[in-house]
Amino acid sequence: MHTGTLYLVPTPLDFGCTHQTPLLECLPQKTIDIAATLSHWVCENAKSHRAFLKRIHELSPLQTPLQSQVMVELPREAHKKGDHQGAFNGKELLQMAMQGHDMGLVCEAGMPAIADPGSSVVRAAHALGIRVRSLVGPSSLMLALASSGMNGQNFSFVGYLPQAQEAKLERLRYLDQWARKSLQTQIFIETPYRNQSMLESLLQTLSAQTRLAVACGLGLPSERIESHLVQVWRERSIKPELKDPCIFLLGT
Amino acid sequence: MHTGTLYLVPTPLDFGCTHQTPLLECLPQKTIDIAATLSHWVCENAKSHRAFLKRIHELSPLQTPLQSQVMVELPREAHKKGDHQGAFNGKELLQMAMQGHDMGLVCEAGMPAIADPGSSVVRAAHALGIRVRSLVGPSSLMLALASSGMNGQNFSFVGYLPQAQEAKLERLRYLDQWARKSLQTQIFIETPYRNQSMLESLLQTLSAQTRLAVACGLGLPSERIESHLVQVWRERSIKPELKDPCIFLLGT
Repeated sequence: MHTGTLYLVPTPLDFGCTHQTPLLECLPQKTIDIAATLSHWVCENAKSHRAFLKRIHELSPLQTPLQSQVMVELPREAHKKGDHQGAFNGKELLQMAMQGHDMGLVCEAGMPAIADPGSSVVRAAHALGIRVRSLVGPSSLMLALASSGMNGQNFSFVGYLPQAQEAKLERLRYLDQWARKSLQTQIFIETPYRNQSMLESLLQTLSAQTRLAVACGLGLPSERIESHLVQVWRERSIKPELKDPCIFLLGT
Repeated sequence: MHTGTLYLVPTPLDFGCTHQTPLLECLPQKTIDIAATLSHWVCENAKSHRAFLKRIHELSPLQTPLQSQVMVELPREAHKKGDHQGAFNGKELLQMAMQGHDMGLVCEAGMPAIADPGSSVVRAAHALGIRVRSLVGPSSLMLALASSGMNGQNFSFVGYLPQAQEAKLERLRYLDQWARKSLQTQIFIETPYRNQSMLESLLQTLSAQTRLAVACGLGLPSERIESHLVQVWRERSIKPELKDPCIFLLGT
């Protein structure tokens, strides 16, 4: 029997934000059209996935009505920070693809399986011989990196930093030294309600000559990208408000 | 005087390929529409940029005729591998933005200033107080990473590897060990005509339990994404042909 294709479907970056980015601002027509043809999904959260499909339907009518769509959620153990170290096997979520249905993989914001869970499902697809196709959409990490002016020819994304204050500062000092030594831009993220305290920790810890960029609310009307040497950040009396999702970057 | 905005405008991934990806497959309508409003550009190569603008014009008429568009090329010294280590100052390319014109920055394929030059211009924009906005479009690195099934919560892009055979193998051995120790996916690229010999070097050098992915011709009808353990790669008698641009990834 023919197996289906696993489409990796990106979503807007406005998850959890009060403003919604129009889909035509952040997704190519083809991504919207393919999303509208699918009826079997692996998602982080079925409720937010239904909300996404409603937005798709406004631009490209869903081939299968929303109430008939089949959605399976990634299990808790595959969620944030976990999808590459746990023992979860994504094969069980791909049964419908083995039966010939095309499937979609989505996360709550941006590219699936990047800075988010989902890689276990993609690995399973390769193991099962299911074709994988990645559709174009927003990657907050790449939008932030391009607009930071930092080295885009050598960079790392390191996920979340430790939460405990001392461990966080130690990690920041390490990333600062490594970025300056290797010229490799270091990118990381933080839970939005901790963004402001992350900025304080950064200004307290980094070398004056390190460049620090913060990309906040990418794609939203409130989008703000600040990229300066740390000494310039320190001289400014007004610090940006970081209520929306942020990407932090440090380098040279 | 009001300064203009510097838009980072992504382009399709088909540069140098015989097939052209329709823009509606890879760019959101907003990216196309904003590109059509701009008349001042910093580009890698004016000739290929004019070809891109002709494709934009077919979907969204250019506000300024092609022959009246102003294009400045990034100097040679800012080109590949060089834009973060040279002494080039991008300020001189942004004079029109200082005079109030919106400007666009483009590279030949994908997101500007990522795996390509342009970061010097973005840094200069921040230094001059010019607003920077990054538009959505394809990032070959992120499409490849998502579809590889490798760790997308911790990864590095390291650019090109050394060309000399011994230095290349030594670098591969280092990346292999580091990827396995740190669980950090390692991503790199190669000049297309060397892709096939890179694949041979990889199969010769990597540990049997390392996962190797090759994403070839992303967005083209010939797109092919293969992701397997090295021992599985070695057992296969047929190796893929890698004539189109490729992204290589190794990890766990």
